[in-house]
Amino acid sequence: MTPIAADPSSRPLPILRTVEDLRAQVAVWRRDGLTVALVPTMGALHDGHLGLVRRGCELADRVIASVFVNPTQFAPHEDFDRYPRDEGGDAAKLASAGCHALYAPTVRAMYPQGFATAISVGGPAEGLCGAFRPQMFGGVALVVTKLFLQALPDVAVFGEKDYQQLMVIRRFTRDLDIPVRVEGLPTVREADGLAMSSRNAYLDAAERAGAPELYRALTLAADALARGAEADGVLTGIRGRIAEAGFGTIDYVELRDAETLEPVTSVSRPARLLAAAWMGKARLIDNVPVIPAA
Amino acid sequence: MTPIAADPSSRPLPILRTVEDLRAQVAVWRRDGLTVALVPTMGALHDGHLGLVRRGCELADRVIASVFVNPTQFAPHEDFDRYPRDEGGDAAKLASAGCHALYAPTVRAMYPQGFATAISVGGPAEGLCGAFRPQMFGGVALVVTKLFLQALPDVAVFGEKDYQQLMVIRRFTRDLDIPVRVEGLPTVREADGLAMSSRNAYLDAAERAGAPELYRALTLAADALARGAEADGVLTGIRGRIAEAGFGTIDYVELRDAETLEPVTSVSRPARLLAAAWMGKARLIDNVPVIPAA
Repeated sequence: MTPIAADPSSRPLPILRTVEDLRAQVAVWRRDGLTVALVPTMGALHDGHLGLVRRGCELADRVIASVFVNPTQFAPHEDFDRYPRDEGGDAAKLASAGCHALYAPTVRAMYPQGFATAISVGGPAEGLCGAFRPQMFGGVALVVTKLFLQALPDVAVFGEKDYQQLMVIRRFTRDLDIPVRVEGLPTVREADGLAMSSRNAYLDAAERAGAPELYRALTLAADALARGAEADGVLTGIRGRIAEAGFGTIDYVELRDAETLEPVTSVSRPARLLAAAWMGKARLIDNVPVIPAA
Repeated sequence: MTPIAADPSSRPLPILRTVEDLRAQVAVWRRDGLTVALVPTMGALHDGHLGLVRRGCELADRVIASVFVNPTQFAPHEDFDRYPRDEGGDAAKLASAGCHALYAPTVRAMYPQGFATAISVGGPAEGLCGAFRPQMFGGVALVVTKLFLQALPDVAVFGEKDYQQLMVIRRFTRDLDIPVRVEGLPTVREADGLAMSSRNAYLDAAERAGAPELYRALTLAADALARGAEADGVLTGIRGRIAEAGFGTIDYVELRDAETLEPVTSVSRPARLLAAAWMGKARLIDNVPVIPAA
């Protein structure tokens, strides 16, 4: 454990590098009868992540955030190498949000020589991002399973910005009987509606100006769908609006069941409207709930 | 929990049907500061299994045996439907061996509607039985992971009869950071050397008479290998001997590293000699250690 002075106004945040240190810290808390929340992240933290930490503080006595840019969820052509990393800045932000420890293992500690196990998930992992990033959810399932079993927290908190990921995590956590409660937190947004994302750092000024149109288009469309509008036309409308705002390739715009993520064509029970599209070098995703009108 | 009178001489053995009942039982023991061993089985218990239970009693204060014929580790053409089942007999044997509870969940409880997660293992799962039963180790990894995470025992005990399985279980348990210690127990044998196996029940009298030659051939070969005999010739010798004893198809006879299960051609460090061959309708497996002469 290496305590670092994260922020003059806050206490030093312990940084745990190994699973042994992590388990020792959790064991101390358990001995004192304290509950524990885990907030898994890939670092490059923004206010969305800090919202997860604050929610963790409401749900448990102690909060550990993990920062690990997980190589198994990136394909070779993706942005693993250039994914933003700033541990000092992350630690300072976490301390200011009330986090109690940062777990930041090395790639070698997580995937040592001889590592030979993989996890695959069907159901909610099929389609949407799963169709465009086929390696992603297996990699997420693997690293989240490891983090859950390393820390054995009472609860873990994930953002709804990665809605499909949240549903996938709920699925394999239940399927594998991992004794951890999975909580979702509504997406934290910039003042103009853009979903906070570490990948927003890839946007230049013009791209940043057009990016909020993704959320605006989804919100308007969700209202229309809730009032009974026909899905095909609404989805086509979203595509038109965001292309006009400067988005390039649109990976998908889809209406799905809010829980199973099965495709739906009308809104008779809670649904979710999800989209992924490229703005410059950044692949942005967003989603909104669609609640059928009473 | 349904207590049944297992044997007039022993106390009734609690039978747990659901993960909730299992966790409640373990929680009671944990509250009393007791350690817990798990012995996963597919039932049709013989003295080999009871040896695992007795070893569990040495390693922990309380022993749970699970009986679950796991459909995900059988291929469609294999013997899932005719695999021997005898819960009453199993419960009586477990009670007499000192077991403290039997966990016997239903297939539907283990794999409910919507189940969508799979585990795959490379490394030690490659080749040997993995080549002939490609679905098996994924199925074993899935069910053992679930059983481990349902019970969260301190230790679990498996037989070395399924040596490759034991190495696979060690591999994914370490890879997924499952906090359970995995212990192996040397193969329990009939007086004539035949490894005890639920599938021995498939043998008729003549087949039963020829079956022990598998172990005899492996033992003689291991001695020769330890003394420096050339592997190719020794392996060919085993094939000849067991074919003469009435074995039909020989799936494999191989020399592997004792820990990684990588193929080896000479014995400079501990190795394992493993074989699988058909005797009538029964696919029999066996293995012996090969310790290099000092």
